[in-house]
Order: sequence, then C-alpha cells, then structure tokens
Amino acid sequence: MIITVDVEEDVYVFRQYIKRYEEDSENAWNCCSWFEYLLIVILSTVLLIGVLVLTLFWVIFYRGGFAWADSPQLQFNLHPVLMVAGCVTFSGFSILLYRLCRCIKHLYVKLTHMLFHACAIPCIVMAFLAVFESHNLVEPPKPHFYSLHTWLGLITMAMFAVQFIVGFFSFLVLLCCENRTYSCRSAMVPIHASFGLANFMMAVATCVTGLVETERQLVGETGLSTRNSEIEHYIMNSMGVVFVALGIIISVAVRRSNAPATAKVYVTERLEIN
Amino acid sequence: MIITVDVEEDVYVFRQYIKRYEEDSENAWNCCSWFEYLLIVILSTVLLIGVLVLTLFWVIFYRGGFAWADSPQLQFNLHPVLMVAGCVTFSGFSILLYRLCRCIKHLYVKLTHMLFHACAIPCIVMAFLAVFESHNLVEPPKPHFYSLHTWLGLITMAMFAVQFIVGFFSFLVLLCCENRTYSCRSAMVPIHASFGLANFMMAVATCVTGLVETERQLVGETGLSTRNSEIEHYIMNSMGVVFVALGIIISVAVRRSNAPATAKVYVTERLEIN
Repeated sequence: MIITVDVEEDVYVFRQYIKRYEEDSENAWNCCSWFEYLLIVILSTVLLIGVLVLTLFWVIFYRGGFAWADSPQLQFNLHPVLMVAGCVTFSGFSILLYRLCRCIKHLYVKLTHMLFHACAIPCIVMAFLAVFESHNLVEPPKPHFYSLHTWLGLITMAMFAVQFIVGFFSFLVLLCCENRTYSCRSAMVPIHASFGLANFMMAVATCVTGLVETERQLVGETGLSTRNSEIEHYIMNSMGVVFVALGIIISVAVRRSNAPATAKVYVTERLEIN
Repeated sequence: MIITVDVEEDVYVFRQYIKRYEEDSENAWNCCSWFEYLLIVILSTVLLIGVLVLTLFWVIFYRGGFAWADSPQLQFNLHPVLMVAGCVTFSGFSILLYRLCRCIKHLYVKLTHMLFHACAIPCIVMAFLAVFESHNLVEPPKPHFYSLHTWLGLITMAMFAVQFIVGFFSFLVLLCCENRTYSCRSAMVPIHASFGLANFMMAVATCVTGLVETERQLVGETGLSTRNSEIEHYIMNSMGVVFVALGIIISVAVRRSNAPATAKVYVTERLEIN
C-alpha cells in the first residue's frame, strides 16, 4: 500500500507524543506523586477524624456534655459536635473519596459520595434545631441570625441543600436515560465540583467564626484567669488551626490529587460520567 | 512507499484524538468558558479592591482613622488596613495575574507576579510593627501571640516569607542557567502554586478571625445598643462575608481558569517555565 511521507511524520509525532506523555506521567507518579497522594490521604483522614474527636473532647470535658430541651446550655453543645460531624467530617470524606478513589466502578464511587453526604443531613438538621431551640430557651432569649457565624452558616446550609438536590438529580436520577443526558451531565461535573469545594470552604469558615465567637465569650467571662479556662483557650485555638488546615488540605487534594495525569483524568472523567 | 495497515490505524486514532480534543476545548471556550473567565476576573477584581475600600471606610469612619506611636489605639488601626492591602489585595492580584494573564511573554508575567508580592512586603512589615507597638503602648499592655488570630497570622507571615524567597530563587535567579535548572524548576511549579494558594487561604482565615475578635469586642463593649455600633456590626459582618467569598473565588479561579484546556496548559506550562 502506498502512502505519502506526511503520514509517517504524523505517526512519528503521535508516537513521540504518547511516549513522552507516558514517560512523563509515569515518572511523576513514581517519584513523588505516590508520596504526595498517600500524604494527602493520611493527613486528610487524620485531620477529618481528629477535628471531630477534638470537638467531642472539648464539649464533654470543658462544656459539660449534652442534653436536649431541659438544659438549653447543654443543648447548645450538640450544635458544634453535630455540625462538625455533618459539614466537615462526613462532607470532607465524601469529597476525598470521590476524588481519590479510582480503583472501583465509578457508579459505586458516586453512590458512596452521595451516601456520605446523606449521612451529613440528619447531623446538620439536628445541629440547627439544637441551636435554634437553645437560643429561644435561654434567659434572656438570644436573637437569631445576627452574627457573622450565623450569616455564613445560613449560606452554607442553603448551598449544601442546593448542591445535594442538584447533584442527586443530575448524576443519579438522569442516569435513567444515559445517552440523552450525557452532554448535560458532563457540563455539570466541573460546576458541581467547584460548588462542592466552595461549600466545604464555607463550612470551614463558619466553624472558625463560631469557634472564635465562643472563645471570645470565654475570654470575656473568665479573663483566662483560671488554669482550666487557659487550657480550654489553647484547645479552642488548636481546633481553629485544624479547621484552617483542613480547608487548605482538602482544596489542595481536590486540585492536586490527579495533577500528573491531568489530561488522562480529563478524558477518563468524561467517559466515567456514566 | 509501502507500509503496514497498523500505521494507518495509528494515524486515524491520532487524527481523531487531535480533532476531538480541539473541538472539545474550542467548544468549551466558546460556550461558557469565556463567560466564566470574565466573571472570575471581574468578580475577583471587584472583591479584592472592594474589601480594601470597605476596610478603609470602616477604620476611618468608625475607628477614628490613623496615627503612629502617639496614640496606640489609632496606631492599631494601621494593622487591618495594611494587612488587608498586603496579604489579600496585592497577593490576590498577584495570583490572579499569574493564572489568568497568558497574553504577554511569560517572563513579564513572572516579574509582575513577583512585583505585586514585593509590594505586599512593606505593607505586612508596617502592619506587624503597628500592632506590636500598639500592644506594648496601651495601658495595661496586651499580651502578644495569644489568640487564634495571632497564631494564624504568624504562620501566614512565615509561609509568605518562605514562599517569596524560594519563589524568587527558583523561578528568577535560577534562570541564569536555564537548561541545567529546568527539571528542578519544573518540579517546583506545582508545589509553589499549591503553597501559594494555601498561603492566600491562611491570610483570609487570619483576616476573618481578627475581624470576629474585634466584632466580639465591640459587642462586649457596647452591647450594640447604639445605632452607630449596630451599623458598624453590620459593616464588619459584610467584610467577613467578602473575605470568605474572596477565599473561595480565588481558589476556584486558580483551579478552574484553564480547565477546558487543561492538557494544553499542562504542556505549555512546562514549556513556559523559562
């Protein structure tokens, strides 16, 4: 069969391109990307569980534990623990699992992603009810939606609800007619990802503002004169540092986890939307 | 010239790949990516300038303006304005310019990026000195590095210094022997980018914690009983929302600005390191 020299040049360019790309991404994964991947997974897991354990420890040992409507002060304590569990720990694991778990069928990853977010819903609802009732029951009743923490919290919850409903319909319900909805679903992927990350960062910002408000209240009430209040102050500061570290590590994980194989992932992501 | 059928298949696959890639990225840019790009640029610019104007407005009209050592209270006011200017506005524009400006020679983009960060240095140093002296001069002197805001602030400044020095040597000084340092510099690019974004997010978290601390002080002192203190409370809450929005929009800008042409950018970035 006779063909022109151009074709040979095409083949050469193509093979060089593929070779270079494969070498490049393989090298990158061999050298430091596996280390980076493991570091991100381990650090994120430790921080996501650690922040919940730290919050539980703080509430139980320094804030008197939990109760429902019979003690508004202890009812309030449910708020930080459940909000951290729902908006940070469950949501964080959900994001991480979706981005980092590429070893099982994509539909199962999506279902697990949805399940973790679904677990967050009762936590958030209970946490919201706890603080709402507690504000009404204390003497004198506290005003609602007044501080920066409450403003950010409301925006975060609204974003969470929109994201969950739109994500559920776009990526699970629309699968009933796979081919017809492909372009719509593929256009939704980057929007859903960016909006989800923004939502997580909003949740972290809300936690930090709530923490600082409570810490300032502690400083105002005690002047950190007792040893106990001073230790509590340091625990709360450490929680704040962990929250900020989490906000950073999760956004870096989402941004960098597949960086060496960006092009590959971009293509496979489009194929894997089904 | 006689060749086997395999080659023809190779050429077909290659041409299909290139065609699909070009169609894909062109479509993506035509449809919504230009809109997204413009939205990010405009929104970021408005927020970066807006937050500085809002801080200036708040300090001048609600905190009594500026002074140096003769009035520790007014000297403190230099701290928020200069820190926001340095750590948020200058740094934010520097990051945005680097990611979004691809129309001029890459070396000029790098120099502008460095220049904006260099402008942030005197602001940060002056802001640090202002708050340090003001804490010493008030009666009774305030303790240093005690609150979450100061912890985060110290980490942010240390990260900024490391990032600036490493970036300056890696991407400008090492250019003196371009070819020998290529692999080193190319390995540094993603680390510098992730660390830079983390630094910006730390700066935003520091601003938000500082703002909430000051707002709680205002609530403690006035109980928001006067009309003036209530308006100031709303201004401070709005500043907090703008800070959080900035943290989100800049990280989305860095993550998404080149998303439709990810593969292309990944290649050009490697070529453009020089």
